[in-house]
Amino acid sequence: MEFEVTVLGCNSAIPAHGRNQTSQLLKIGNSYLLLDCGEGTQIQLRKFKLRFSKIDFILISHLHGDHYLGLMGLISSFQLHKRTRLLTIFGPVGLDEILTVQLKHSNTKLNFPLRFVVTDPETPKLILEESNFKVFSFPLKHRIPCTGFRVEEKIRFRSLVKEKLQEKKIPVEAINCLRNGKDYTGENGNVVYSLREYTHPPKTPRAYSYCSDTCFDPEIVPYIKHSNLLYHEATFGNDYEDRARETFHSTAAQAGKIAKSASVGRLLIGHYSTRYLDLSSLLQEAKEEFPKTYLSEEGITYSID
Amino acid sequence: MEFEVTVLGCNSAIPAHGRNQTSQLLKIGNSYLLLDCGEGTQIQLRKFKLRFSKIDFILISHLHGDHYLGLMGLISSFQLHKRTRLLTIFGPVGLDEILTVQLKHSNTKLNFPLRFVVTDPETPKLILEESNFKVFSFPLKHRIPCTGFRVEEKIRFRSLVKEKLQEKKIPVEAINCLRNGKDYTGENGNVVYSLREYTHPPKTPRAYSYCSDTCFDPEIVPYIKHSNLLYHEATFGNDYEDRARETFHSTAAQAGKIAKSASVGRLLIGHYSTRYLDLSSLLQEAKEEFPKTYLSEEGITYSID
Repeated sequence: MEFEVTVLGCNSAIPAHGRNQTSQLLKIGNSYLLLDCGEGTQIQLRKFKLRFSKIDFILISHLHGDHYLGLMGLISSFQLHKRTRLLTIFGPVGLDEILTVQLKHSNTKLNFPLRFVVTDPETPKLILEESNFKVFSFPLKHRIPCTGFRVEEKIRFRSLVKEKLQEKKIPVEAINCLRNGKDYTGENGNVVYSLREYTHPPKTPRAYSYCSDTCFDPEIVPYIKHSNLLYHEATFGNDYEDRARETFHSTAAQAGKIAKSASVGRLLIGHYSTRYLDLSSLLQEAKEEFPKTYLSEEGITYSID
Repeated sequence: MEFEVTVLGCNSAIPAHGRNQTSQLLKIGNSYLLLDCGEGTQIQLRKFKLRFSKIDFILISHLHGDHYLGLMGLISSFQLHKRTRLLTIFGPVGLDEILTVQLKHSNTKLNFPLRFVVTDPETPKLILEESNFKVFSFPLKHRIPCTGFRVEEKIRFRSLVKEKLQEKKIPVEAINCLRNGKDYTGENGNVVYSLREYTHPPKTPRAYSYCSDTCFDPEIVPYIKHSNLLYHEATFGNDYEDRARETFHSTAAQAGKIAKSASVGRLLIGHYSTRYLDLSSLLQEAKEEFPKTYLSEEGITYSID
């Protein structure tokens, strides 16, 4: 199953140096999830030739403009493209009011159903469960209510040992039973086809965690533990650690520390302050804490495995 | 006095073909006015190296997203840049609610005073008068309440005839009197310096008219009459005249007809439908009605004289 994330915007508050405000497009199997939606997200989706009509879920971390101001424009474009499919938006309380007021004043009656799910900034929650993945929200510490998101594959099916399948003609019900993780037994209760002999153990389910805007907060570690890929904001370098503390943001080194504590596979940093034209110092400082760190760059797709 | 307009976005509803949503920056003397503010306007202002901190007046024609969705992001950037100067926004009723709701949920207390002036979509009004220019709003016929804007120089001072000035030493009070359009008389009431002899007649005040989204509506002609430059939307070509009528938009030929009826100097068309990648047919159709027609192009500055 494909599981990957494309960065659409990697700058913090103000779009600058050709870098846009936060947004990421996550693909898992045939599902597309948009994580945050800063101003100009629809322009970025078009620029990178991503078919945004396939987005069925939009997850907004918090209500600072650089994380949601592109949402109303994207909804308008869905409308103009005659969307009919359900769109589900997860976000903080208040986002529903912001959207409703704007739809009212533009006299817009949407062609498609829009479901709004309020996120909980206090307690981690399972917010979405599909056939092949689950999404959790968890609290982040920022100046206003804010959540991170963890997107996780469900436990994968066992794969069958090919040589064994060729050897004997195994009935379909036995194959389904084995793929679902159970021995297949005969009428008398005896094991006819055993899991151990006929299947490979399932691979570990993969996970992506997304921490948009947060101060340095080791309390989030349990929620992002063992993610294959962690996105963690790194607004500042060590030179502005005080400023990071004041504004409830993180430094690149702090993002690296969190990645290390959570034993993630790889770390992706972003949400760069406009003061950094050259990002190499941020990368270097994060790598000193966690060597498998990468800079998020717009238009680049990062695989999650 | 400099009087010019820079186009920041020229596409209609959806940003496409590298064209952005409607916005224009008008410079008159030392004043900067932003006309509409589609999504990504702040990105365009940066791209064209326009110093947006100088904008003191923002005029929003109506509440379709492609004309105002960049406003909240621009206000956020003013805030982050520590603006302290008054910002005045003119726009339809409801825009104040849209802004207030968003400021509330982002917990933003602005550093600078923001004055909001509700426009009247029924009756033409003088909405702003500064020392050297005036702005009028006037009704446009669209699917929701909408206004156009006319920005007009005030009557210009007379300029003095240079040769005459060199000839005699004229007192300062006489010069001021002449520049303000009066003969200078001596104590006995005799004309000492006559307007006719010492000054050139004042030039006609220049005007720019802006018609954002409107159906073909000859009733607007009195409001835009004799503008040196008229911007009139031209969403469609002749091939989609029915569609223009249905959606309360205009064709390029209709924009040309309005320009001709209003005896304007030049016509600038824009708000192109996404279906037109190549704009030459729109230009051609408008020119058949009004030869002095130009395509609005992003980043281009058009002088008003």
